[in-house]
Amino acid sequence: MPDLTPEEFRQLGHAVVDWVAGYRDRVAELPVRSQVPPGWVSRQLPDELPEEPEPLAALLGDVDRVLVPGTTHWQHPSFFGYFPANASLVSLLGELLSGGLGVQGMLWSTSPACTELEQHLLDQLALASGLDERWTFSGGGGGVLQDSASSATLVALLAALNRSSDGRWRDCGVSGAETVYVSPETHSSVAKAARVAGLGTRALRVVDTQPGTQAMSAAALAATIAADVATGRRPVLVCATIGTTGTGAVDPVRAIAPICTQHGAWLHVDAAWAGAAALCPELREPFDGVELADSYCADAHKWLLTAFDASMLWTRHGRALPAALSITPEFLRDAASESGTVVDYRDWHVPLGRRFRALKLWAVLRGLGLRGIREHLRRHVGWAGELAGWVRAEPGFTLATEPSFGLVCLRVATGAGEAADDAASRAVLERINHSGAAMLTHTVIGQRYVIRVAIGSVGTERHHVTALWELLRRTADQVRAAQVAGSPALADSAAEPDQAFLHHSGDQPAVLAEETSDGQPPTAERRR
Amino acid sequence: MPDLTPEEFRQLGHAVVDWVAGYRDRVAELPVRSQVPPGWVSRQLPDELPEEPEPLAALLGDVDRVLVPGTTHWQHPSFFGYFPANASLVSLLGELLSGGLGVQGMLWSTSPACTELEQHLLDQLALASGLDERWTFSGGGGGVLQDSASSATLVALLAALNRSSDGRWRDCGVSGAETVYVSPETHSSVAKAARVAGLGTRALRVVDTQPGTQAMSAAALAATIAADVATGRRPVLVCATIGTTGTGAVDPVRAIAPICTQHGAWLHVDAAWAGAAALCPELREPFDGVELADSYCADAHKWLLTAFDASMLWTRHGRALPAALSITPEFLRDAASESGTVVDYRDWHVPLGRRFRALKLWAVLRGLGLRGIREHLRRHVGWAGELAGWVRAEPGFTLATEPSFGLVCLRVATGAGEAADDAASRAVLERINHSGAAMLTHTVIGQRYVIRVAIGSVGTERHHVTALWELLRRTADQVRAAQVAGSPALADSAAEPDQAFLHHSGDQPAVLAEETSDGQPPTAERRR
Repeated sequence: MPDLTPEEFRQLGHAVVDWVAGYRDRVAELPVRSQVPPGWVSRQLPDELPEEPEPLAALLGDVDRVLVPGTTHWQHPSFFGYFPANASLVSLLGELLSGGLGVQGMLWSTSPACTELEQHLLDQLALASGLDERWTFSGGGGGVLQDSASSATLVALLAALNRSSDGRWRDCGVSGAETVYVSPETHSSVAKAARVAGLGTRALRVVDTQPGTQAMSAAALAATIAADVATGRRPVLVCATIGTTGTGAVDPVRAIAPICTQHGAWLHVDAAWAGAAALCPELREPFDGVELADSYCADAHKWLLTAFDASMLWTRHGRALPAALSITPEFLRDAASESGTVVDYRDWHVPLGRRFRALKLWAVLRGLGLRGIREHLRRHVGWAGELAGWVRAEPGFTLATEPSFGLVCLRVATGAGEAADDAASRAVLERINHSGAAMLTHTVIGQRYVIRVAIGSVGTERHHVTALWELLRRTADQVRAAQVAGSPALADSAAEPDQAFLHHSGDQPAVLAEETSDGQPPTAERRR
Repeated sequence: MPDLTPEEFRQLGHAVVDWVAGYRDRVAELPVRSQVPPGWVSRQLPDELPEEPEPLAALLGDVDRVLVPGTTHWQHPSFFGYFPANASLVSLLGELLSGGLGVQGMLWSTSPACTELEQHLLDQLALASGLDERWTFSGGGGGVLQDSASSATLVALLAALNRSSDGRWRDCGVSGAETVYVSPETHSSVAKAARVAGLGTRALRVVDTQPGTQAMSAAALAATIAADVATGRRPVLVCATIGTTGTGAVDPVRAIAPICTQHGAWLHVDAAWAGAAALCPELREPFDGVELADSYCADAHKWLLTAFDASMLWTRHGRALPAALSITPEFLRDAASESGTVVDYRDWHVPLGRRFRALKLWAVLRGLGLRGIREHLRRHVGWAGELAGWVRAEPGFTLATEPSFGLVCLRVATGAGEAADDAASRAVLERINHSGAAMLTHTVIGQRYVIRVAIGSVGTERHHVTALWELLRRTADQVRAAQVAGSPALADSAAEPDQAFLHHSGDQPAVLAEETSDGQPPTAERRR
């Protein structure tokens, strides 16, 4: 047959496993951020598709020669950018099993195990995360693995639109009166979901934060919703975040929930990054009130050791997603579905087909145990606390916000004013990323440039954090010295061509910047 | 660290590779369809999440004990249901490399190789599939890997909504005047996309087919659109299909395209299953006119040997997707993006994060070469032709439609009328699926029950097709004999409890049934 035989796969599969093991063994020695310019990777690739089969060695050779230099190493232990992407080795075992089985889990009947293992694990993880029985299938709710928190947000919005219209949305679409509520720090995926759902970004309401914080003000939310209701708008969804992308801020879910209830708005809680921490009872305080939400999302592929993609979405309303997304006329539903004993997960998300994603999550849970997972989380939170302490104690730095879980936000202090601190902070980040020794991204708080240190990579050990701190201090010293000397390269790092490129493409975390560069998301409201 | 060390992964990874090799070695001996009732899998699973790590042997033991019996084996060589799900072993090598690298390809800058390899391969595959330069990045178009054709359809619709509104859709949402055109045989994902996009299913127009065929009538499309335009509707998107889910019908793209152009409607061509065949020049005739479309989709994970998920979406309008989906204010775009030399793929789909999917496609292309891939496709098409010939020559069967690529649609002939043929066809399908010897699904053409034989699994050899034909003949003989004897079990196979369950859940291909059971999709038009 035109595929490997199982015996060939055995041989070549071992070689690829060895390649992966070797890569993870040496990844710490590679520059974290890719050093190649645009087009470099493409130029290394063959002009034509191969007509004849090639040996695996040719592929692996090109992976080493082209892809590795063209890769920013998210699995590097000194990757502190964005949020972690925990592609643990133990999860890859489950991923491989999933590929081996190669099933389509769109319906229960197309592979019962694919559906039931997912239901089972999500029920158990809900309870282990402090949610109550109402979030499990047996309690009338349930969970599903989405590809990403963006998709989870979209699905929550669709369920909200359907509920809010008493089901008219399915046939009649949106009315144009719907409104959606976020804070300036809410992830841009809510704006994207509103656009995808046909509401347009003008349906977004950006609710003020509590003064001096990055957390949504419940009072401002109440006032904004009341004003909308007074003008005939229909509040459909409020997105509260536990652990915002910029600074890890926590919206007050317990205070927000009754406002949503009062107005019939769906409360979605986005804990994409921080949600993993709820597995540790002592880290659960910021999750206060989540059980009052309508839906709740936490990514297993960020900080829960599971290779992308595996975003966990739970809802208390187990029928809400199928009610919104099913397109099977009732008379065609099968007996098993009708009996309520099976779930057809295709009605829980936008795509029809679906992989056996639960297997990699199962491999993590069984391979590490809850104890191992909690150790993983606690280490990072502990190191973030240590790093924050060092920053506090160091006159050359300021802590921009209190640390949140594994995230520390800091600025370089120059003693020469906020603008000089901005420039120095940016220069430090650029130099470090350019060096390849570590990878950092930034955010902006109240117009001020802030370096984010997101501790959470699978391979990160305490000594990587201490090394980063030494690097930050050393680089800040260099930058401050250059600033005093009035170095033109510092004032405008674009002066050097290579730096210019790095400045504009590599160091620019556009994903974060778009949401936070002026402290507000890019809504239609603001563009006007 | 709380993960496997690379050395541990080497050991355990080899064991999992061996498990996969062993599974594929023996999958042909397993019953194709899972035999377990609802809840069985769940009941076998541990009540509690493990507190302590468990050895890999425990996981693999449970995979064998619980998951394998709970699995419908899509990789079985006698899986002829739905459409094939080609999780080739060679593609798993690429999948594993992708997991090993563990990158997030949301932006070019977050991993240049992830973006550039995808661009490069999709450019080459466009040309190899008979599309012209305008569908490549260098020609102003470009391709992207989506998770599924459903998502590709949604993205095409969003781009169409944005274009059709001159960009107002981004901020203002849908107007309610938009209309979307499908045939009765179009995949239900278009109805789902219309709902997700906020149009409601009432925006769907179901255009008649050409008499005696399952292909959309271009004349009827022109008339339907004209009527809508006359009443102030705005035709936004027409979905033409090459290889419908039910019978593999081919809509006349060349005749449809000018109608779309005339009315400014976006033409999306869905060749999710059949698209792979365009790599064989001699199979390209049904693709006549695709270069006139605005977007075109073919799934690498159906019949192109690539493990789910990898749906290839191309468009001639390389700026259309970012124009619709980008949420980065222009002033924040980075220099590389602005220069036009890089693509940020997050603006080409709904999710933000993305896996390095191109690697598994690369592994297939290089591991098998175009020659191997074409052999894979040609074998299935050849066997489908043979099977159709056997059906034609056998008085006990009728060919329901001409074979399409690897798909053969047939009915059991009883000589006792259409209703008896329906019952016999259904009974044959149920008996075969129940036996576990092969897996088939059905469709309905003009109220008549039709057995589909979708040839295309990676492991399928000619002898599996001949064995299926023998099984069909033998089972049909038994069913006809029982019919003559007036067996009550045949008249209503639900009489036997186990059969009842199989009848209602296992054999019911709800995905197909929902679109074709009465020859029409479940649109709002029809529900009224």
